Amino acid sequence: MSLEAALERARAERNADLSDFCAELRIPSVAMEPSGRDAALTNADWLTEGLRDAGFDAELWGGELGMPLIAAEWRGAGPDAPMVTIYGHYDVQPADPLDLWTTPPFEADVRDGRVFARGAADNKGNHFAALCAATHAIAAGGPPVNLRFLIEGEEEGGGPVLPAYLRERGAGLDTEAVLIWDGGFIFDAPALVTGVRGILYVELSAQGPRVDLHSGEFGGAAPNPINTLARVIAGLKDADGRVTIPGFYDAAIPPSVAERQEWADWSEIEGVFAGLIGAAALEGEPDWSAVERLQARPTLDCHGIWGGFSGEGEKTVIPAEAGAKLSMRLVPDQDPEVIFAALARRVDELRTPGVTIEVRKSGSAAPAASFGTDHAPLRAAASAFEAAFGKQALKVRAGYSVPVAIDFVNHVDAPIVCSGFSQFDCAVHSPDENLAIDHFHRGIEMLLHFFWRLPAELR
Amino acid sequence: MSLEAALERARAERNADLSDFCAELRIPSVAMEPSGRDAALTNADWLTEGLRDAGFDAELWGGELGMPLIAAEWRGAGPDAPMVTIYGHYDVQPADPLDLWTTPPFEADVRDGRVFARGAADNKGNHFAALCAATHAIAAGGPPVNLRFLIEGEEEGGGPVLPAYLRERGAGLDTEAVLIWDGGFIFDAPALVTGVRGILYVELSAQGPRVDLHSGEFGGAAPNPINTLARVIAGLKDADGRVTIPGFYDAAIPPSVAERQEWADWSEIEGVFAGLIGAAALEGEPDWSAVERLQARPTLDCHGIWGGFSGEGEKTVIPAEAGAKLSMRLVPDQDPEVIFAALARRVDELRTPGVTIEVRKSGSAAPAASFGTDHAPLRAAASAFEAAFGKQALKVRAGYSVPVAIDFVNHVDAPIVCSGFSQFDCAVHSPDENLAIDHFHRGIEMLLHFFWRLPAELR
Repeated sequence: MSLEAALERARAERNADLSDFCAELRIPSVAMEPSGRDAALTNADWLTEGLRDAGFDAELWGGELGMPLIAAEWRGAGPDAPMVTIYGHYDVQPADPLDLWTTPPFEADVRDGRVFARGAADNKGNHFAALCAATHAIAAGGPPVNLRFLIEGEEEGGGPVLPAYLRERGAGLDTEAVLIWDGGFIFDAPALVTGVRGILYVELSAQGPRVDLHSGEFGGAAPNPINTLARVIAGLKDADGRVTIPGFYDAAIPPSVAERQEWADWSEIEGVFAGLIGAAALEGEPDWSAVERLQARPTLDCHGIWGGFSGEGEKTVIPAEAGAKLSMRLVPDQDPEVIFAALARRVDELRTPGVTIEVRKSGSAAPAASFGTDHAPLRAAASAFEAAFGKQALKVRAGYSVPVAIDFVNHVDAPIVCSGFSQFDCAVHSPDENLAIDHFHRGIEMLLHFFWRLPAELR
Repeated sequence: MSLEAALERARAERNADLSDFCAELRIPSVAMEPSGRDAALTNADWLTEGLRDAGFDAELWGGELGMPLIAAEWRGAGPDAPMVTIYGHYDVQPADPLDLWTTPPFEADVRDGRVFARGAADNKGNHFAALCAATHAIAAGGPPVNLRFLIEGEEEGGGPVLPAYLRERGAGLDTEAVLIWDGGFIFDAPALVTGVRGILYVELSAQGPRVDLHSGEFGGAAPNPINTLARVIAGLKDADGRVTIPGFYDAAIPPSVAERQEWADWSEIEGVFAGLIGAAALEGEPDWSAVERLQARPTLDCHGIWGGFSGEGEKTVIPAEAGAKLSMRLVPDQDPEVIFAALARRVDELRTPGVTIEVRKSGSAAPAASFGTDHAPLRAAASAFEAAFGKQALKVRAGYSVPVAIDFVNHVDAPIVCSGFSQFDCAVHSPDENLAIDHFHRGIEMLLHFFWRLPAELR
């Protein structure tokens, strides 16, 4: 029943934990590839067995819809203890390009204090450490919280199972905290993600002449869909990077004073981002720092553009068509539907009379989500990170979207802690993905601290 | 020695002329393709023989530089008679796509009053009719002008031979008229091309981040080369289609009052162009009619644009690079070098700080050329067209560039008549290219009229 006993056990079992972790890493659970589906199912069974061994009731749910979700509960802390729900995923990204791996991606080679394998960081390290923490806590007499795991198999490729589960059962999960345990440090600091940007992805299709024309014969009278598309895209942002779609910022809630104060000290982080970007200068709304813009300001970026002749040499065509893909990252409380309508009106204003432009959603459309910047599970997580890693956690907003987080926000009435402990250079989704072994063991201890601190924070 | 005798002979020999024309059409002289070079040389020999049979001194020139130029002279009109130099080309465009031809492209099928073959209009019809005219004129006692043919084999693919010949011998050609005989009617009317637009073809290469980035992680701080390239392209023209490069129009000479008066009646032609363009509306400088813009106003058109992701679905990349090709059509006296420098400055003004843009010439750079709207050969040609076709010729400026015309302007001190007699729907460069047989025979007669009228116009 004591944290110390659980920590003691975790330290004593380090070799066994690492060895078991490597066993999971050797399962090539690339669920999105047909050749990896059996391995992914094996991985699900393997985890289910491990959860049962630890003392959980565990089931596989939704296998008829897609890759099954592992849903497991341990209620040994009693009916009055808080419930902690831990999210992870057992599917992994494809390992391509294989020739860029130093050792094979499913060999789990241990070297230089790290274990190298596809999934080491994303997400097996995070969820297997959580399973180790649960195992040791229960074996040491049990934590003061009940525990639930929801480990899905469709995170990398998308799929219906977890959303269906949360739609069906989310309201009844009756949990005091959700740990979306699928992240890592920012540089040298634990990161607590307090919100994610939304997204609205669209495609513009411009049509000028009926057929491709010769610019010598028709230039000066024929409308040019590339020129007009450029005019439209240029007209969506001003030279300083402010989006000029009428009403775009109306519903955007600025970051809080507390957030801005915290971020004001992050000039080092801004410098590191500038280095990663490697451009002549950073760009964006001048009224906000780059760190603020990356986390808490909406954006508009063109992702692709095409039209006409792009080969070697000279072709003097006025093409019939041109197109572009672009997306807007959204912040609370921007509504993707409202923004889409305003965008469509703006495009129609900006086009020239001879070119028609179709605007259509061609990808994600999701609002931003906020998880809150001060709640009991977040405080417990911050102090647990400090206890286990000796480091102060940063509260950050993610610039990208985390669809699973949106599903939890929509269907589960509980505060969310979105974090994890893979180190910053873990090469997620890349060759030589790896996890620092020290982070793995400290990650187990961090969760033990969290289990024991949460009840006090909730009181 | 009489026009009537020559016309008589042309009428008597119609079947033979058409038959000989078909013989030339059966030579697949696609000089720009390795497989067509031998045929092109055969075509050159075949024409040289024909010219010698007609009474010309003929030689092949520059074969060591590329496809040889046929240079042939007949000086039977005596040293005091004017010299007429007739330009044509024996090479033809490739015939692809072959499956769209009703009959094979080198079969010279005669049907519906037309002969169908690659090269029927461009340019064998025009130059072979000129050879027939010369043959009949000489056989009928000789025209009152001396005659020279310059028939090249590198028009379709470009090449050094004709430019080298004109550089070396142009000043000594001592000719009273140059017929650039490589054109056709506009709709139902003979067209006398009185000038051509120049061109400046450039490529813009935009560089933003060092590598492709994720728009969720970096959007709001990373510069986006597509957005900036769009801003630059949009900033080169205003919404009404006026080019906004400072000084762009400074040297542009407006069309003459006489030209504008003539063109004012061409609303029907504007309507036909609008139909060919098939867009929601025509576009361009509002102060000029479409007919004026197409002939005598400079333009700026983007020919290609690329960058980022253009596949199916959604990819949220901020690409490292984007690029575009564009050209400006120039009018007298715009200087391509001056315009290029002004463009480069304008691009640098328009770019955003995080994106660098390289501007480089990636194709043609040539000034416009004027052939004059009232000179003796032009008057002779107009009255010859009226005599042979019963139709008034239109004086037009070509919106496209005719590199060979520029070479003649630069190196030969003689007025130029740039015209031809292929009918408007001859499908030049397309499958089922054809020449109306009536135009072929009238074209021969038109040149006979021209030979006999020119001396009077020159007096």
